[in-house]
Amino acid sequence: MTDTITITGVVGTEPASFQTSGGVPMVSFRLASSHRYLDRKTQEWVDSPANWYTVQAYRQLADNVRGSLHKGESVIVTGRLRVRTWTKEERSGIAVDVDADAIGHNLVLGVSRFTRVKTSVE
Amino acid sequence: MTDTITITGVVGTEPASFQTSGGVPMVSFRLASSHRYLDRKTQEWVDSPANWYTVQAYRQLADNVRGSLHKGESVIVTGRLRVRTWTKEERSGIAVDVDADAIGHNLVLGVSRFTRVKTSVE
Amino acid sequence: MTDTITITGVVGTEPASFQTSGGVPMVSFRLASSHRYLDRKTQEWVDSPANWYTVQAYRQLADNVRGSLHKGESVIVTGRLRVRTWTKEERSGIAVDVDADAIGHNLVLGVSRFTRVKTSVE
Amino acid sequence: MTDTITITGVVGTEPASFQTSGGVPMVSFRLASSHRYLDRKTQEWVDSPANWYTVQAYRQLADNVRGSLHKGESVIVTGRLRVRTWTKEERSGIAVDVDADAIGHNLVLGVSRFTRVKTSVE
Repeated sequence: MTDTITITGVVGTEPASFQTSGGVPMVSFRLASSHRYLDRKTQEWVDSPANWYTVQAYRQLADNVRGSLHKGESVIVTGRLRVRTWTKEERSGIAVDVDADAIGHNLVLGVSRFTRVKTSVE
Repeated sequence: MTDTITITGVVGTEPASFQTSGGVPMVSFRLASSHRYLDRKTQEWVDSPANWYTVQAYRQLADNVRGSLHKGESVIVTGRLRVRTWTKEERSGIAVDVDADAIGHNLVLGVSRFTRVKTSVE
Repeated sequence: MTDTITITGVVGTEPASFQTSGGVPMVSFRLASSHRYLDRKTQEWVDSPANWYTVQAYRQLADNVRGSLHKGESVIVTGRLRVRTWTKEERSGIAVDVDADAIGHNLVLGVSRFTRVKTSVE
Repeated sequence: MTDTITITGVVGTEPASFQTSGGVPMVSFRLASSHRYLDRKTQEWVDSPANWYTVQAYRQLADNVRGSLHKGESVIVTGRLRVRTWTKEERSGIAVDVDADAIGHNLVLGVSRFTRVKTSVE
């Protein structure tokens, strides 16, 4: 599938909750990711500069993210990338969003305890 | 990167711990994944048959998986796929493994509480 | 999206053409992929053992694959992985298929000349 | 692997050739991708707004892209995403680059004829 991406990174802002205009629960947070690579000149492993994304989740995933994730925690996010152009008064720019299909704490860096949430939708 | 894959699915067996011949901690469990798709004939959304994988993790990730995951829980796994041919006496077959880079509980289906693990390696 | 995968590899068999029972054009070929990795003991880059897949494509993509790809050529394939269990008389096994969304010659290893095909469907 | 992505899209600018400061051949072009999705309200399939990327390739892949790709052609690109912040005098913004591992014409939309290029490096 085009534009799908999986990112392992660090939650950079406390997740913020909203409702869409249609009343759908939504959550949003900033995510920073970097990777280690072998520098050909120095032959040493170094960290790349971080990529920053705005992660968005909806419905049950939004509710569970709000009850689970905090700034500074390590996570996996998989979803679809969206590169948007925005304009605001005389300024414009590019925003890099990920519409998340799934999000979880990354067990490379810690342990997690899971509690299933029952929903009427399932 | 070739052969990298991200899977959302259900842990199908209780994670089992081993040590490699070199003394590296390792964990292994079975993972089942399926996806919903629109059946063109009936115009209904149905679940595909499950794909089954053997997920393997090493070192700190192995330790944390053992202390976190249980059979029946929903997870995200990202890593590299390995399609191996095996032979055992007169029989042979194919095994489909994933060498995991990261694993986490899937917040689509529940909430998780994370505790960072301090390691001497970091 | 769960189970989606991108593979760079070598076409291992001449593509074979079929029709599904519903009359849809289909093509199938074997694909071998391997990757280079740094061996921690020897500190040398080596090739992994090959993963073998059966790639399947349908409709216009099937027609164009048949008119373009040949055994031994380097390609990129992106699609959805399917791990199937098969039984035939007293034997059974696992088959690893990729339902391709897109396929192309890999320009890392050569040049390609493209001719757009007009279809009534578009 | 974190931040890896596969994109199917249309070449938006004629590929431009450069040399890095270290004398490595490099090519760059703009890529637009969109996907079809089912609009829940209207129950119709529609195209998403396009994501725009700057694709960069190096060495042999750069040479072969220059000899193969043209504006308007459909391609598959797989590589690593890079979200950079740039500043130029008093202005700043975000650039979304893909460092390509592999690129090919997309056989969904046409046929391609491949010629292997012999290199001294292989």
